[in-house]
Amino acid sequence: MTNKANMPWEERHEGCSDVMWRYSQNPVIGRYDIPSSNSIFNSAVVPFEDGFAGVFRCDNKAVQMNIFAGFSKDGINWEINHEPIEMVAGNTEMIESDYKYDPRVCWIEDRYWITWCNGYHGPTIGIAYTFDFKTFHQCENAFLPFNRNGVLFPEKIDGKYAMLSRPSDNGHTPFGDIYISYSPDMKYWGEHRCVMKVADFTDSAWQCTKIGAGSVPIRTEEGWLMFYHGVINTCNGFRYSMGAALLDLENPDKVLYRSKPYLLAPAAPYELAGDVPNVVFPCAALTEDNKVAVYYGAADTVVGMAFGYVDEIIDFLKKNSL
Amino acid sequence: MTNKANMPWEERHEGCSDVMWRYSQNPVIGRYDIPSSNSIFNSAVVPFEDGFAGVFRCDNKAVQMNIFAGFSKDGINWEINHEPIEMVAGNTEMIESDYKYDPRVCWIEDRYWITWCNGYHGPTIGIAYTFDFKTFHQCENAFLPFNRNGVLFPEKIDGKYAMLSRPSDNGHTPFGDIYISYSPDMKYWGEHRCVMKVADFTDSAWQCTKIGAGSVPIRTEEGWLMFYHGVINTCNGFRYSMGAALLDLENPDKVLYRSKPYLLAPAAPYELAGDVPNVVFPCAALTEDNKVAVYYGAADTVVGMAFGYVDEIIDFLKKNSL
Amino acid sequence: MTNKANMPWEERHEGCSDVMWRYSQNPVIGRYDIPSSNSIFNSAVVPFEDGFAGVFRCDNKAVQMNIFAGFSKDGINWEINHEPIEMVAGNTEMIESDYKYDPRVCWIEDRYWITWCNGYHGPTIGIAYTFDFKTFHQCENAFLPFNRNGVLFPEKIDGKYAMLSRPSDNGHTPFGDIYISYSPDMKYWGEHRCVMKVADFTDSAWQCTKIGAGSVPIRTEEGWLMFYHGVINTCNGFRYSMGAALLDLENPDKVLYRSKPYLLAPAAPYELAGDVPNVVFPCAALTEDNKVAVYYGAADTVVGMAFGYVDEIIDFLKKNSL
Amino acid sequence: MTNKANMPWEERHEGCSDVMWRYSQNPVIGRYDIPSSNSIFNSAVVPFEDGFAGVFRCDNKAVQMNIFAGFSKDGINWEINHEPIEMVAGNTEMIESDYKYDPRVCWIEDRYWITWCNGYHGPTIGIAYTFDFKTFHQCENAFLPFNRNGVLFPEKIDGKYAMLSRPSDNGHTPFGDIYISYSPDMKYWGEHRCVMKVADFTDSAWQCTKIGAGSVPIRTEEGWLMFYHGVINTCNGFRYSMGAALLDLENPDKVLYRSKPYLLAPAAPYELAGDVPNVVFPCAALTEDNKVAVYYGAADTVVGMAFGYVDEIIDFLKKNSL
Amino acid sequence: MTNKANMPWEERHEGCSDVMWRYSQNPVIGRYDIPSSNSIFNSAVVPFEDGFAGVFRCDNKAVQMNIFAGFSKDGINWEINHEPIEMVAGNTEMIESDYKYDPRVCWIEDRYWITWCNGYHGPTIGIAYTFDFKTFHQCENAFLPFNRNGVLFPEKIDGKYAMLSRPSDNGHTPFGDIYISYSPDMKYWGEHRCVMKVADFTDSAWQCTKIGAGSVPIRTEEGWLMFYHGVINTCNGFRYSMGAALLDLENPDKVLYRSKPYLLAPAAPYELAGDVPNVVFPCAALTEDNKVAVYYGAADTVVGMAFGYVDEIIDFLKKNSL
Amino acid sequence: MTNKANMPWEERHEGCSDVMWRYSQNPVIGRYDIPSSNSIFNSAVVPFEDGFAGVFRCDNKAVQMNIFAGFSKDGINWEINHEPIEMVAGNTEMIESDYKYDPRVCWIEDRYWITWCNGYHGPTIGIAYTFDFKTFHQCENAFLPFNRNGVLFPEKIDGKYAMLSRPSDNGHTPFGDIYISYSPDMKYWGEHRCVMKVADFTDSAWQCTKIGAGSVPIRTEEGWLMFYHGVINTCNGFRYSMGAALLDLENPDKVLYRSKPYLLAPAAPYELAGDVPNVVFPCAALTEDNKVAVYYGAADTVVGMAFGYVDEIIDFLKKNSL
Repeated sequence: MTNKANMPWEERHEGCSDVMWRYSQNPVIGRYDIPSSNSIFNSAVVPFEDGFAGVFRCDNKAVQMNIFAGFSKDGINWEINHEPIEMVAGNTEMIESDYKYDPRVCWIEDRYWITWCNGYHGPTIGIAYTFDFKTFHQCENAFLPFNRNGVLFPEKIDGKYAMLSRPSDNGHTPFGDIYISYSPDMKYWGEHRCVMKVADFTDSAWQCTKIGAGSVPIRTEEGWLMFYHGVINTCNGFRYSMGAALLDLENPDKVLYRSKPYLLAPAAPYELAGDVPNVVFPCAALTEDNKVAVYYGAADTVVGMAFGYVDEIIDFLKKNSL
Repeated sequence: MTNKANMPWEERHEGCSDVMWRYSQNPVIGRYDIPSSNSIFNSAVVPFEDGFAGVFRCDNKAVQMNIFAGFSKDGINWEINHEPIEMVAGNTEMIESDYKYDPRVCWIEDRYWITWCNGYHGPTIGIAYTFDFKTFHQCENAFLPFNRNGVLFPEKIDGKYAMLSRPSDNGHTPFGDIYISYSPDMKYWGEHRCVMKVADFTDSAWQCTKIGAGSVPIRTEEGWLMFYHGVINTCNGFRYSMGAALLDLENPDKVLYRSKPYLLAPAAPYELAGDVPNVVFPCAALTEDNKVAVYYGAADTVVGMAFGYVDEIIDFLKKNSL
Repeated sequence: MTNKANMPWEERHEGCSDVMWRYSQNPVIGRYDIPSSNSIFNSAVVPFEDGFAGVFRCDNKAVQMNIFAGFSKDGINWEINHEPIEMVAGNTEMIESDYKYDPRVCWIEDRYWITWCNGYHGPTIGIAYTFDFKTFHQCENAFLPFNRNGVLFPEKIDGKYAMLSRPSDNGHTPFGDIYISYSPDMKYWGEHRCVMKVADFTDSAWQCTKIGAGSVPIRTEEGWLMFYHGVINTCNGFRYSMGAALLDLENPDKVLYRSKPYLLAPAAPYELAGDVPNVVFPCAALTEDNKVAVYYGAADTVVGMAFGYVDEIIDFLKKNSL
Repeated sequence: MTNKANMPWEERHEGCSDVMWRYSQNPVIGRYDIPSSNSIFNSAVVPFEDGFAGVFRCDNKAVQMNIFAGFSKDGINWEINHEPIEMVAGNTEMIESDYKYDPRVCWIEDRYWITWCNGYHGPTIGIAYTFDFKTFHQCENAFLPFNRNGVLFPEKIDGKYAMLSRPSDNGHTPFGDIYISYSPDMKYWGEHRCVMKVADFTDSAWQCTKIGAGSVPIRTEEGWLMFYHGVINTCNGFRYSMGAALLDLENPDKVLYRSKPYLLAPAAPYELAGDVPNVVFPCAALTEDNKVAVYYGAADTVVGMAFGYVDEIIDFLKKNSL
Repeated sequence: MTNKANMPWEERHEGCSDVMWRYSQNPVIGRYDIPSSNSIFNSAVVPFEDGFAGVFRCDNKAVQMNIFAGFSKDGINWEINHEPIEMVAGNTEMIESDYKYDPRVCWIEDRYWITWCNGYHGPTIGIAYTFDFKTFHQCENAFLPFNRNGVLFPEKIDGKYAMLSRPSDNGHTPFGDIYISYSPDMKYWGEHRCVMKVADFTDSAWQCTKIGAGSVPIRTEEGWLMFYHGVINTCNGFRYSMGAALLDLENPDKVLYRSKPYLLAPAAPYELAGDVPNVVFPCAALTEDNKVAVYYGAADTVVGMAFGYVDEIIDFLKKNSL
Repeated sequence: MTNKANMPWEERHEGCSDVMWRYSQNPVIGRYDIPSSNSIFNSAVVPFEDGFAGVFRCDNKAVQMNIFAGFSKDGINWEINHEPIEMVAGNTEMIESDYKYDPRVCWIEDRYWITWCNGYHGPTIGIAYTFDFKTFHQCENAFLPFNRNGVLFPEKIDGKYAMLSRPSDNGHTPFGDIYISYSPDMKYWGEHRCVMKVADFTDSAWQCTKIGAGSVPIRTEEGWLMFYHGVINTCNGFRYSMGAALLDLENPDKVLYRSKPYLLAPAAPYELAGDVPNVVFPCAALTEDNKVAVYYGAADTVVGMAFGYVDEIIDFLKKNSL
């Protein structure tokens, strides 16, 4: 999964003392970047060959939700296919899908695994794999509806695949915690454990309504570093911000540290206004040496990037843990 | 109803491939364009004498909703009266009105008919006629409460007046379909038929919560061309977009084609922010030769315009029908 | 419409000082009185030939709502058809109906008119006429959805048919007032006026949530006597009780008197328990000399009767008017 | 699993033409039948040794929900343990449980499997096995929260365990359909398929809000016979009734027939009044020759029984299928 | 406040092992016991002269809520005045009251104090005093709206009056805890402290939605014994049960013991059915030697009584404390 | 409380005819003006020594709400402490506080009194005093929960302290009126009176959902001038605007005049977008000669200022009173 391309990066702006900072050229992907799109957001990228590949959520102008493959040399300028991904059968013939959204991409051992919110009598977690971002093999849905934000770990843990997810309901779910589940074979799932719950309103209100896993966890010496979103329900609707957690390497249902303050919250114009105002929604992170670049959906309309140093982020988590 | 003034028009911008496009000088009417106003939006215009006349929704700074007459030579620069329309009795003495909003104007045979959302123990459809935009004769309300978005056809159909409307409830109605009703005399109404219902979420989500007729239907060879609004309920509130439908000339309760993608959705700054963010709400259309100019309320705050070619729009409907 | 049969009657029980009292043999119609039924309630009866006829709401065991004709010699023992009414076209070919419930029956001039809550894209008021309770001619729905409790006056008023109704929404409507509408021809309706609104909670809480017309108004020298239901929303659901109003003979949108105390409220076992506990829902009244017999649905399960003297009821209204 | 005891039985009452009928001595278990109980309902029984055993939902007087073992010689007179079941570890050490309710019991191959609604950060499906109804081995929860009404098939299907369940949310779920999932080992579950959805209101309103599996499916020559509950949301709350479905023997996600009319709905006094009025909730069925005895919770307070003939029920399903 | 009449009493029924038991002649007051009443419930009684006096909530047949004085020789057979209490000015001229309900009566030093839920722009706590149950002097409302269930202590504590109450909102409040407030003069109140909150659903579900003080606390050697109501929100509405708590004599915001199981919950027919099914709502307790008699509203319709021994109740609290 | 500093001021802009106008350099306090802050808004300032002091609501990046002291020479450039105020005991030892927000500051006689929304088992009104803005003495909460927007009068009235407040519930309260309460000692409160209620939707919709006191009332010859906020519930959430009222000097529960049109409503970019779009929320006013400067929170994110002349505002109220 390593490649020779340098990951996108921009240094901390002068005068900025935040742990993570926005890319000055945000948004990196605009709402109309493919002809059919109404909005492109909540998308995932990974190193691929001599550059990067990604799976993108592009809602079309009928506001149908689907996922599209895309490619980039530098992680910033993207060529996104104009047609959505068409699945072929993987470990199942049942590849029904009313809609697909909020993809994540995870390299495990020999292939890229895609997870997304899959419409099968309501939202649940769809799974597919690809070797080349051209042919995608759809597998059994991981869970019964209703579920969202399924995020795989990049390695088997104790010999089993591991996935974070957020059980939900069939609407604009006003609750939600992060769980982990295990599978010997990417087909049957069990050993479900609660990992992280919403915070008390008085402790950390930005994550008191619901939380959901964001990026594929990054292995560090101190634990799995995972960016996630937290939601507060204001009198004018939901506000989505980004935090991070450090999970135990061997027992990832054990949270070592978790950000009490957010790392990034809606404040830039493209985060404050759009199809759904006040949304910062991380779905992927690239890492190289000590640097990390997070891709996040902004206002359910465009894609932005934010940067940071892994050690600084972990240090911040330790000093500001919930 | 024809006049010698040219309708307002601006060609498609270079590089734009959309079927309809915004006027570059939007908004054409600002929120404070009359002294008392808090906002001016959801308004209707027609050719009149050597220019244009209109009926405008101007909410005042007490946020009372009322309708005002206005006049323009070019359809873009408007003189709106500073006092709301005062009605005189038409075919009834009962001209109670707690509030008036979202007017439409329709020329039929010998006069201009105004329809609007009229407050009579809740919202229903008010009707009035005028010959000169000075004296307005208020008639019986068309329906029992609760109803909104009453839009007349510009000709009698099978000898009867015809009106589209959207039965509602007494609040921020979270549902709504378009019906047609007929009247021999603009006083008694019946023969109610369902014309168009909301779309399935998976087919066309921008119009899956409620829809309502917008502009007076335009007669074309292929059918009545009608712009309408559709609404999706996001986790941060309702988002209103614009589509179009082609109704059968003789049996207008029969939908020939209907836009699966929207034609215009909130994306410009004056549509994304305002008293009610994320609203595009068409209320009138001017047409001349093959050109059409739609007037729409933006963010419940100002009035914008969008343009298109009738044949292109119809062609688009045929190719992208729900 | 007169007949030779005596209307059902039972004198006021000893020790009872209520204005109206229950029949001691209640319920007169049981929930399983036809083989397919789950419940029989909210039904209407009229004098017919040498006895009585009625139209009955019988929900079947799939809990589909439909209306059935029935016949009785004495108004108490009923033969209800085992098959629902099948309509033939009256003044329209459009006789779609997803469901039918809560019928009323009204003799006007030369025939019996049936009104009911008709499922046409939601509840609205269906209309049909019959001469013999065998063939029923379905006419245009009176109104757009959403409406319930349509009740005709037994005479034209100022040359027009008149109907009370209650505009509603598409669910368990938590609001509702009584309006009147007029029609020259039973096809087109207009001149809608608000007649009675819910009471203030502090004045008469049993009718503070919604009200709806019940029985066909009875002409008396002092006005139209009409039994209606009122609803209070308790912390355990809706409770339906019965009151009465006296409407002006010539301008029936004018309420002369209206019961501040209820006349009958759920207290008997068959009213307190059943498919919907705590419901008394009047749909018809027989009258003869000074006596009146009201048929009411109880707990959405069975039919009960209550009796009273017209002059006493009017006297009570005068002394206890809201 | 067979035994020598005769299953409880009472013939159809004279004059009764219903497909299924209540036991005349209902309720068979009273609300206070053990000292600590507030209510005993929604319980499951199976043949065991020379009589019957069961697992009973007994809410105590703190209204804590738990499950208790019980024994009977005749299936009607029960000795229920005064202490709830204490679990030992089965295929997991994680046997947390905030509460347990609505048990089902299913014999598969060599042991009895218990499934129930298990409180683990919300309701999900708990699993345990026992050989003797004394020692119970708790296994991994089958699914992520939120889920209720997990019901096992009494045989492996295509080599795998199969379970029906109803994905839910974290409150008084106002929606719910029946799904099937498979497991090679009672630990990891997958291949989730939608089996039955709620009915349209106009087709079969008693099951239009939510449905859930009830009894362990009974193998018949024509398919798996399964009793289930359906719910309608009246203006005074939920009403639970009982229907039945016939599922394909080899592909049980295929519904062959399904009752459009209910088989049993709340009408007896102990069903109409209690902690939750208007509930009939089947959890178990005994069968012998052609006879079937269903145990159902009534009004969330007591346990009742209903009887029928398997062939008549299947015949009824065929003739009255949704 | 002592008197010579014996308090009403009935021994524990044979075979009954409950801590508290119902009076076998319940209900002691019927819904129609005065001519105007729709229901009589949630009422308070005290020893008075050579018998007992009480203040009764009698909703009339307009379902207006008001309080009435009544008298009894034996505490069981009551003469309730047919006219509601008319207040005269106490420590204020502002004796507005839209409605009065749920009274409590408390003897302190030299007079009887009445508290009730008083309608002043919403529910709040009304206060009045009387010497004779003939003239009642209304004082300042204790608190701002919205509040219910104000219950005084029968002695000053640390020189100040003390009152329990339950802050609420303006509807069918779905939350509610018990607070204490102090006053030097029955006019100004402060030092508000939280006393008891709702229980966790998993610990004691019958009191997990809201709780409210019931009877005037009884001084015992071990603390203030107070009966209260607790509420669970079932899928068919609220269910009200009765528990008890023992508060510290000197610091009554300190709860010494509190019943985890309820002491009385709806199970008798007159508690399960009525205007609001499933309500047991204690408002007063008489005590003599070791005996206690609780008066409680049943189903918001009638008044029932329950008996117990103080020492047994306290013993039960100690052994079954939350 | 007087000082020598000039209050901040900017003349009415040319061409502006509004009664009040925004400061051209708005916002005067940015969201990140102290290192820990997520947002700074809804804050109060007063003259202090040779400049100004204030108490500021700074939500930190964990979105915990707290209040901070700050100082300024000119009322525009502020130094806000980086640590929140730590309270010492005032007239109580009970100084629990889960959170603090929306402070007001009021000089009475010899000291500054701070009121704020204090988290004690829900929102209520906290009180503290300070002489120097360094040491703050916390007193008893004024009221039981739930309450917000407590605003003191700057003088005793009839010998008693007086406070406006808005009883609320425990969430995003969808209702709310302004009351007044009195206290002899800042510890016990009573004599609660309703001052102002929300307006009818048809009269003044911007204040039809809830209203709350804003600034400390300013004594003028004609009455107490008080700025307040009003809220309308649009289909996309709450919109907060500013009005003013003139209260009787001696009986301040008597409203002399009250603005029917708003004085300031969200229209500037920093009011339309932010953490909670469309909020203008006044918390303080400085006055000098005839000039007034209002400090208001904008979009729950920053602080803005607006100016006006007292006599013009009073004149406007008289001419445009509700």
